[in-house]
Amino acid sequence: MDAMGRSTKSSSEGSKTVSGSPGADTALGSDFLQLDIGQAPPGGRTAWLADRLRSAIADGRLPVGTRLPASRVLAGELRVTRGVVTEAYRRLAESGQIAGRGRLGTVVVAAPAAPVAPAAPRESARDAAGPEHALFASAVRDGVVDALRALPCRIDLSPGLPDLAAFPRTAWLRAERAVLAGVTPADFGYGDPRGAPALRRAVVGWLARNRGIRADPDEVVVVAGVAQALSLLGKLLRADGIHRVAVEDPGSLGARQQLEYGGHTVVPVPVDAGGLDVGALRAGGARAVLTTPAHQFPTGVVLDGERRRELLSWAAAGGVVIEDDYDAEHRYDRPPVPALRSLLPDGVCYAGSVSKLLAPALRVGWLLVPPDRLDAVVTAKRYADLGNGVLTQLVLARLMDSGELERHLRHVRQRHRRRRDAMLRAVEARLPGARVHGAAAGLHLMVTFDDLGTGLRDTDLAAAALARGVKVHPLSWHRLTPGPPGLVLGYAAGAAHEVDEGIALVGEALGSLTGGG
Amino acid sequence: MDAMGRSTKSSSEGSKTVSGSPGADTALGSDFLQLDIGQAPPGGRTAWLADRLRSAIADGRLPVGTRLPASRVLAGELRVTRGVVTEAYRRLAESGQIAGRGRLGTVVVAAPAAPVAPAAPRESARDAAGPEHALFASAVRDGVVDALRALPCRIDLSPGLPDLAAFPRTAWLRAERAVLAGVTPADFGYGDPRGAPALRRAVVGWLARNRGIRADPDEVVVVAGVAQALSLLGKLLRADGIHRVAVEDPGSLGARQQLEYGGHTVVPVPVDAGGLDVGALRAGGARAVLTTPAHQFPTGVVLDGERRRELLSWAAAGGVVIEDDYDAEHRYDRPPVPALRSLLPDGVCYAGSVSKLLAPALRVGWLLVPPDRLDAVVTAKRYADLGNGVLTQLVLARLMDSGELERHLRHVRQRHRRRRDAMLRAVEARLPGARVHGAAAGLHLMVTFDDLGTGLRDTDLAAAALARGVKVHPLSWHRLTPGPPGLVLGYAAGAAHEVDEGIALVGEALGSLTGGG
Repeated sequence: MDAMGRSTKSSSEGSKTVSGSPGADTALGSDFLQLDIGQAPPGGRTAWLADRLRSAIADGRLPVGTRLPASRVLAGELRVTRGVVTEAYRRLAESGQIAGRGRLGTVVVAAPAAPVAPAAPRESARDAAGPEHALFASAVRDGVVDALRALPCRIDLSPGLPDLAAFPRTAWLRAERAVLAGVTPADFGYGDPRGAPALRRAVVGWLARNRGIRADPDEVVVVAGVAQALSLLGKLLRADGIHRVAVEDPGSLGARQQLEYGGHTVVPVPVDAGGLDVGALRAGGARAVLTTPAHQFPTGVVLDGERRRELLSWAAAGGVVIEDDYDAEHRYDRPPVPALRSLLPDGVCYAGSVSKLLAPALRVGWLLVPPDRLDAVVTAKRYADLGNGVLTQLVLARLMDSGELERHLRHVRQRHRRRRDAMLRAVEARLPGARVHGAAAGLHLMVTFDDLGTGLRDTDLAAAALARGVKVHPLSWHRLTPGPPGLVLGYAAGAAHEVDEGIALVGEALGSLTGGG
Repeated sequence: MDAMGRSTKSSSEGSKTVSGSPGADTALGSDFLQLDIGQAPPGGRTAWLADRLRSAIADGRLPVGTRLPASRVLAGELRVTRGVVTEAYRRLAESGQIAGRGRLGTVVVAAPAAPVAPAAPRESARDAAGPEHALFASAVRDGVVDALRALPCRIDLSPGLPDLAAFPRTAWLRAERAVLAGVTPADFGYGDPRGAPALRRAVVGWLARNRGIRADPDEVVVVAGVAQALSLLGKLLRADGIHRVAVEDPGSLGARQQLEYGGHTVVPVPVDAGGLDVGALRAGGARAVLTTPAHQFPTGVVLDGERRRELLSWAAAGGVVIEDDYDAEHRYDRPPVPALRSLLPDGVCYAGSVSKLLAPALRVGWLLVPPDRLDAVVTAKRYADLGNGVLTQLVLARLMDSGELERHLRHVRQRHRRRRDAMLRAVEARLPGARVHGAAAGLHLMVTFDDLGTGLRDTDLAAAALARGVKVHPLSWHRLTPGPPGLVLGYAAGAAHEVDEGIALVGEALGSLTGGG
């Protein structure tokens, strides 16, 4: 460094303060409004302070309801007598802009003329501006699922949500209390980008008990959900020169959009009754595939034994399999299916999360990759965000270790099953011509209207349902190549009577389009 | 879809179950070990179950300490009588592998011969394998800071950490209880990728009060710390064809590594007593710059008035300024400095976080970009991870809104100041020839050994300090072009007596290298 004169000056100032006023623990000036008393004219500090407060109220930096610092605190920070601050506050109180509110302290109560608009919550203003079905009218764009989510509705039959009302709030708070009592100061610092060791150990136990997967905690990378897992894996694939990724068709719109955002070309591979068509995968020539073998999204098909063998032999020959095990734990009428990863740890990248077990808003998942890709994925996670937040990880680890999460899963599975049954009955009664797919497991089912052929656009049906207050996903959102119209219908989030009412309204919408209503 | 026979079959099975056994709420088979009773030979269910449990214990899927499901629950899931399960458990208990543990239930107590190694925490095994100073011996590599962090030590004087022992655990738990009591089921679902509206409003208030920044909540994107902000901005820059980014020299090693990982070439711009040399920035030709104007890392210099004007005019002419406001709230002997963003909202990308206010392990920060880049940054955040975890966001919003965070900051500032003073005294007493920079603010200071010139490598000094149990950063880690040796010394994380002892040990290390010890 060529000229550090100023830093040296700062440091000598620092030393001077140390020796000159050893008890002074306040900074020069206040962070509050960046007030610097050095700017006040001599003898005019009260007027200056009152003026600064008045402008901050006028320009919206201190909106109505803001609490001002205690006069003692502000006086200390500005190194003025407390009288300067109380007098400035008194002047603003007299002009009606602030008022004492007892234990709440001094609060801004009114802004002068021409106030700025209050920063009210206007979450979905941009998205909700157009007519509801504008969403469904055009080609699928980035953020369309977020935009649908932000719209108001009476009944939400969007797929992908478990019963969120069942979130174990009491158990969570209990675990959080234990975590906060036991955590060390060092745990609050920067941590291992792979995640908290306690959660990685708990995930290993969970995967061994519930998904047949054996892993070492050092192989587990905690991620912010399967979405982040895909984003990290996308980086690794590009670094390997893999720019085309095969996806299931139909398959998840969100996953496809994410791969495309990451610079990949997606190669559609058809799904039939046996699951992903591995022959078509080979023919397509992509070197990586994203698949949902335990419960294909959205069809609900299970990858059958022969296809599993074919896919594993494709992987053993160098293909990269990305297994999205998104809702394998929700089964009703069929035996469990072990994860592909349990059969070929060296050839399968495996991603799972608590989104369908507990709640998507926790944004916690896990990623296992073949050993030769571990360093690269840890580096990708480091530079993505330095690792997940620690408190949520430690709470989850406790819930997993104590068996609380398994108990929760058994509890919601019963509720989900009743809602699934309600939806099956409602579909049979209210949606003539609908063919049901994939109802044996999961949190949603798929219906197709095979006989209506090209006479019905499912986006029109989804728009007509939304006009009646019901959110559903048109199947075509999740298709890459055209096929019969259909809907993807989530049944887990709401009560059985809401599921029934929602399907009745979808039936009305269908009737309005086909002339049957 | 051409052949959905199997799905249809699943769905009809589902319907059959509904009508055939309306009360049955259990799935076929158990997630636990993926047990499928269909595989058991007729009449041999107990032996089959005992065998499956035995193999799972032998191969490590059920390590010692694992709790087995209650016999009633497992029997229900497998659709066998409870006697089948209790008898299988009894056989394993007789062979000494499991045991009843009262309220804890039935627990695995011993594995048979040749057990797998227990998955003990071995966090830093890979990094700690070599000699301590191997870290400092070679060129700086990815993850070097993580590797140093993972090593054991007696006293940690690494920069970048606030007083973590002061983390407000009680206030956090109180806020979490209130959040869990008030949150709606919908809040647990997928949310706005920009973050929880409550936190975005709270951040707006915080920035207005403390950093002079006016913003609308719709402009705030909640991110996983400044690291993620840089990762998202890197994507935007590349999309704009910007592949060279100017950085301060000296400047943060972590930020530089992150930009390079994101595919950018970093262009060093010297820092002098006035801060970033804007003339050199212009001459370097980069179209974007990452800067720390309020408290330059690591020198501690404040960008002076003339340089601020120059930098803003460079930005107004189309340059992209990324302002990392990483520890602006920690000041001791100087007035506050408003953020650059407060002067030119349309030309400055602004990133801040709670890492230095509360704790890095929370992984929460905020990003403000010029209006014309907002959509792009929201899209980048969506495809990075769909948004931050909600509970931590809502707790933080409460702490900000209630004034708790400002109180915490005042509290730790006093402690930090005492530790800073202790370090200044210790450096003067124990590190002869050390010149101190940037002590008026922040959580660290920088020392240089200008007179030792090329006679001392600061990496050797850091290695010698680590051999004595003290972690410090060699200044050369944070330099792009060579300069005098030095250290970056954090003083905020430990008590004053530890700071003093740590600097004494660094002094010993210095003596051992310069012949003075």
